[in-house]
Amino acid sequence: MAGSEETSAEERLIARYFRPLATSPGAFGLSDDAAVVTPPPGCDLVLTTDGVIAGVHFFPDDPPEYISRKVLRMNLSDLAAKGAKPIGYLMSVALPAAIDEAWIGAFVAGLGEDAEHYGCPLLGGDTDRTPGPISVSIAAFGTLPHGEMVRRSTARAGDSVVVTGTIGDAALGVMLRRDHDLAAHWRLPDALTAQLTQRYLLPQPRNALAEAVRRHASAAMDISDGFVGDFSKLCRVSGVAAEIDVRRVPLSDAARTVLIAEPARLETVLTGGDDYEIVLTLGPDKVDALRTAASEAGVAVTEIGRVTAGQGARFVDGGKMLTFDRPSFSHF
Amino acid sequence: MAGSEETSAEERLIARYFRPLATSPGAFGLSDDAAVVTPPPGCDLVLTTDGVIAGVHFFPDDPPEYISRKVLRMNLSDLAAKGAKPIGYLMSVALPAAIDEAWIGAFVAGLGEDAEHYGCPLLGGDTDRTPGPISVSIAAFGTLPHGEMVRRSTARAGDSVVVTGTIGDAALGVMLRRDHDLAAHWRLPDALTAQLTQRYLLPQPRNALAEAVRRHASAAMDISDGFVGDFSKLCRVSGVAAEIDVRRVPLSDAARTVLIAEPARLETVLTGGDDYEIVLTLGPDKVDALRTAASEAGVAVTEIGRVTAGQGARFVDGGKMLTFDRPSFSHF
Repeated sequence: MAGSEETSAEERLIARYFRPLATSPGAFGLSDDAAVVTPPPGCDLVLTTDGVIAGVHFFPDDPPEYISRKVLRMNLSDLAAKGAKPIGYLMSVALPAAIDEAWIGAFVAGLGEDAEHYGCPLLGGDTDRTPGPISVSIAAFGTLPHGEMVRRSTARAGDSVVVTGTIGDAALGVMLRRDHDLAAHWRLPDALTAQLTQRYLLPQPRNALAEAVRRHASAAMDISDGFVGDFSKLCRVSGVAAEIDVRRVPLSDAARTVLIAEPARLETVLTGGDDYEIVLTLGPDKVDALRTAASEAGVAVTEIGRVTAGQGARFVDGGKMLTFDRPSFSHF
Repeated sequence: MAGSEETSAEERLIARYFRPLATSPGAFGLSDDAAVVTPPPGCDLVLTTDGVIAGVHFFPDDPPEYISRKVLRMNLSDLAAKGAKPIGYLMSVALPAAIDEAWIGAFVAGLGEDAEHYGCPLLGGDTDRTPGPISVSIAAFGTLPHGEMVRRSTARAGDSVVVTGTIGDAALGVMLRRDHDLAAHWRLPDALTAQLTQRYLLPQPRNALAEAVRRHASAAMDISDGFVGDFSKLCRVSGVAAEIDVRRVPLSDAARTVLIAEPARLETVLTGGDDYEIVLTLGPDKVDALRTAASEAGVAVTEIGRVTAGQGARFVDGGKMLTFDRPSFSHF
């Protein structure tokens, strides 16, 4: 007979693996029903949630330290695009019985690294066994001065369109992960193949640019479901048109190499998911200030088009307007 | 070829079913990457997360309007136990392909009712297809005056122990749901059988008592994994002992009927999960004020024991100290 003082296996798992992540005083070492945060005076709280499921958003045999960092970074990317500074996250984890403690150890090690790097500690969570696939859902929180969250719906005709980093790498990385022969078909050197698969495994959210986005952007969103579809959404909710010069969309050397071998992959690059870059609009007079801030933050930014009056984003490749089979990723 | 203006099936699903739930202005009709809330000045934000998986936390053929309300109420119960007033929630939903729109319609209808009743609107979410079971994870948020969250770890020797509602009904309800013959075995009239299964299907979180908990409790938690195990946790993190008079633990007429037929079910009643009642400690001089507030809120409260110096909760039944095979529910 176990006494009422006996701690359960679930409690021991939480104490050993998850409690060390809960470094915020308001997380109470995960020993309470809830966490508490005191928002800085005059600040709003920005809230977002995003999750991953094995076999849907990642391959079940992806390294666990990448799975955990990926789902946290997906949420951090949303905060960055809104101009918010991360303050912490809640996490729900559902694990099949086959998952061992080594897996869990690697999963939390990845989270711990990222929490420190991005200043975003675990505030609380929920851990369950599941008869289904591994699934992880995170809700992340950030702060910014009252009323300053950068919206999707506030782009204005005349604004410049700017995008961070490079587009399409993760979508090509997924293809390489599914079919290793593609690297030879695309004549991709090993180093570039590794770059593309790494971009799929581990997004690089642009939180270093969040304050500049908040100061300068008229509208912004993070690109998670494909550049074409996501930017089209931004135009739609803003009630504007835009023209994107596809030849100015920033591509990595790896993506350029793929397009030389197989030009039709341009659609994959422009519409594939998992970029976790930011697309933003801003007054043309603010582009220089953004460039300066981006250079200081070590984030590449590229001007790729212009917002106009009207309706609908157009993607123009040397005078030819592109159309797409599937402008963005949809689960349904 | 779809134009870039085409909305995806996922967007249409969200627009039709989930957007009507997003009544808070800071949810932006679910059209943005994130939601924003402005905490009232001088207030802290209380954050909690809890989820359900089909086949683990509910039966896959439970009515969808109960599944959604249950998971929201599980989170509301945490906020109530901490003394916080709900302000909204984020929700991640993963649905198998077999789920149809009628199911989704009922699922959101339940949420809409509860959101209105408890003043807790949808702020944002994430919707995915899954090859696994239905799973729903909610992160809920509440506010309270700075520094006033009621902790688990602050019970003091000399405090009275009080519990809301009745204990053990949901655990008996699950047994009835699994084995319909038990009702006859327990000589349970249909009305009482229905009461027990209803307590399993639909928790009754004690948010009406949240402010009184905040004003009067020295420590509190919600009972979700079984009264014995959960209250033992409270004593452990508070570094106190306690003696609970098991004969004073409040039971429904239905539970009393079961115990007459099968006295050994007392262990199920005291250690089974899904009560979603609050157990709290408070100075004996405050019990009357709590009773008055509870009476006004229409919530039953019962004094069941006393906190003492030392370590460990004891559960005493007429002079005999009880021990338990499995003091609380554990997923691992």
